[in-house]
Amino acid sequence: MHTVHINNSRAYDVLIGPGLLSRVGEFMREAIPPCRAAIISDSTVDALYGDEVESSLRTAGYAPLRCTFPAGEQNKRLDTLGEILEFLAENHMTRTDVIVALGGGVTGDMAGFAAAVYVRGIRFVQVPTTLLAAVDASVGGKTAVDLKAGKNLAGAFHQPSLVVTDTDVLRQLPQALLSDGAAEMIKHGVLADPELFDALCRPDWTERLDELVARNVAIKRDVVNADEFETGLRQQLNLGHTFGHAIEKCSDFALSHGQGVAIGMVIAAGAADQTEICRKIIAACRSCGLPVKSPYSAEELARAALSDKKRKGDRITLVLPETIGKCRLEKIDVAGLEDAFRRGIAMAEALA
Amino acid sequence: MHTVHINNSRAYDVLIGPGLLSRVGEFMREAIPPCRAAIISDSTVDALYGDEVESSLRTAGYAPLRCTFPAGEQNKRLDTLGEILEFLAENHMTRTDVIVALGGGVTGDMAGFAAAVYVRGIRFVQVPTTLLAAVDASVGGKTAVDLKAGKNLAGAFHQPSLVVTDTDVLRQLPQALLSDGAAEMIKHGVLADPELFDALCRPDWTERLDELVARNVAIKRDVVNADEFETGLRQQLNLGHTFGHAIEKCSDFALSHGQGVAIGMVIAAGAADQTEICRKIIAACRSCGLPVKSPYSAEELARAALSDKKRKGDRITLVLPETIGKCRLEKIDVAGLEDAFRRGIAMAEALA
Repeated sequence: MHTVHINNSRAYDVLIGPGLLSRVGEFMREAIPPCRAAIISDSTVDALYGDEVESSLRTAGYAPLRCTFPAGEQNKRLDTLGEILEFLAENHMTRTDVIVALGGGVTGDMAGFAAAVYVRGIRFVQVPTTLLAAVDASVGGKTAVDLKAGKNLAGAFHQPSLVVTDTDVLRQLPQALLSDGAAEMIKHGVLADPELFDALCRPDWTERLDELVARNVAIKRDVVNADEFETGLRQQLNLGHTFGHAIEKCSDFALSHGQGVAIGMVIAAGAADQTEICRKIIAACRSCGLPVKSPYSAEELARAALSDKKRKGDRITLVLPETIGKCRLEKIDVAGLEDAFRRGIAMAEALA
Repeated sequence: MHTVHINNSRAYDVLIGPGLLSRVGEFMREAIPPCRAAIISDSTVDALYGDEVESSLRTAGYAPLRCTFPAGEQNKRLDTLGEILEFLAENHMTRTDVIVALGGGVTGDMAGFAAAVYVRGIRFVQVPTTLLAAVDASVGGKTAVDLKAGKNLAGAFHQPSLVVTDTDVLRQLPQALLSDGAAEMIKHGVLADPELFDALCRPDWTERLDELVARNVAIKRDVVNADEFETGLRQQLNLGHTFGHAIEKCSDFALSHGQGVAIGMVIAAGAADQTEICRKIIAACRSCGLPVKSPYSAEELARAALSDKKRKGDRITLVLPETIGKCRLEKIDVAGLEDAFRRGIAMAEALA
């Protein structure tokens, strides 16, 4: 088992290894005395893993409750949050009780937000069941729901008390969900870790999943620690995201976040005029089953990106790779965004 | 004008004086550069003061927006919060913009909560228009909405950037709303300030409103500063509240918060077997137009209090006055609560 210590506004451990799901209660006991524990998960994950986690909690002395909501990003909204909060209140959960967020990004975001605001804050334990949640959402303390006007517009910073990632669960994910997580892992490689990047270019990368997940968590921790409330350095984590969000949006979210980020990283390398890096990112994405070419024109993407960015003023910060392992921030005028897309797309077309 | 400096997790000023409503924008300029400013208020307050605040903001260089919700505590819920958040998003408010909470406790709680969670936190300025909001809600950073299962069950700690209290506005309040605020002022007197307490026993107390509001804010600041996240000392602020909430609840909220707290403080003094203090609290409450006798039996009140307190374990902390100016905490078994009510009510009946 790998243990990554996180030490930001709250100190906690991220545990990563096979077979951990049945030991969640045991690990919790080190941080949280017996209390009521509300397991929040979506209908899909609850059916797969709810019983195992509940039984592990009960064995460890907790009084488990199950709160399930319908699976799907479209349910990550205030209505569902309200139902979760009413569930907690009806069951007389107190500030000394705990929420266990069992699931992928949607569950982690929403259960974490519920933990942030229920009686103005209770503890929560994250049990990520997707690779994306394991390498991305488990560090940083961002919780949120979507509004009609856009994704993640209501939320809070709220750190978990413990994260338990069972890599056996991750290994059973369908390829599409593995790829989705891999996109963020490639990103972390480009930002800070050439060796991680190289590992992802090899076909056997899922055999080293435990170690690679741990490296990713450590990288994200180091970036976030330097900038917990996202005022500067943490912007680097947006590598591929400005471009990627525009792609997701143009596809009306038929393309996943990971697919958007993959294409977005290729475009970022192209926009930075980094032929060699662009070539490498294309290879890594392909190795992980991710797309590399934009189905949309620079004009379409710029329009989509700018309708988002209205809320951020008239400058936009791009994250551009300098080498595999180092990126820089560049502020450009929003007027220059379409050209950046154009150069990025042109290089992707030439190399892919 | 009185200025009370607050210095907890965020430093800010509470400004108190006549005619400040038309200068809100001017004061904001010292803390917040020109940006969009969403004025959130209920339908009643918006009609009375919305134009004046909007014009003050515009003159000071802000771009004001108005967001109004239907007046009434029954609207302090997640649905209304959602409407406010969608309003902010539709108007492309960003993290560098500001919310102006113009109104009483409901508005402050809900607009403050919106500020706490919109894009994971933006600044807000509080402009309390009730005495209760001015002396109570403007310090401590508690924001919340009600759930079906109970009041204030979802919320966040989020400090304002500035509080502007126009005492001309307070002086125009109907007597019932003045009395409601006075109950918390009497409470602060019993907790920490015999002189404030004496002032409230005199019929001319509203003539010293500016000074008295400032004293109250300073008292609450000192208690909260010692214990921002409410783990110990701050519990003293619950003087009269355990009993008072039960009274409000038995009346199905026909009795106001202030009325409940007033009767609750009399009961607290009685339960502590403090005849002289009980007599003084009765006098202060009467001077401020507040009731002092419980319309409900000890049995009814204990039942109401305990249905709330299930969520807090099997002990309950009472705040009991020792002198005017000093209280102590006493943990009792929930089984003893009915007896405490009985002794308190008996003394109130004997003295009032």
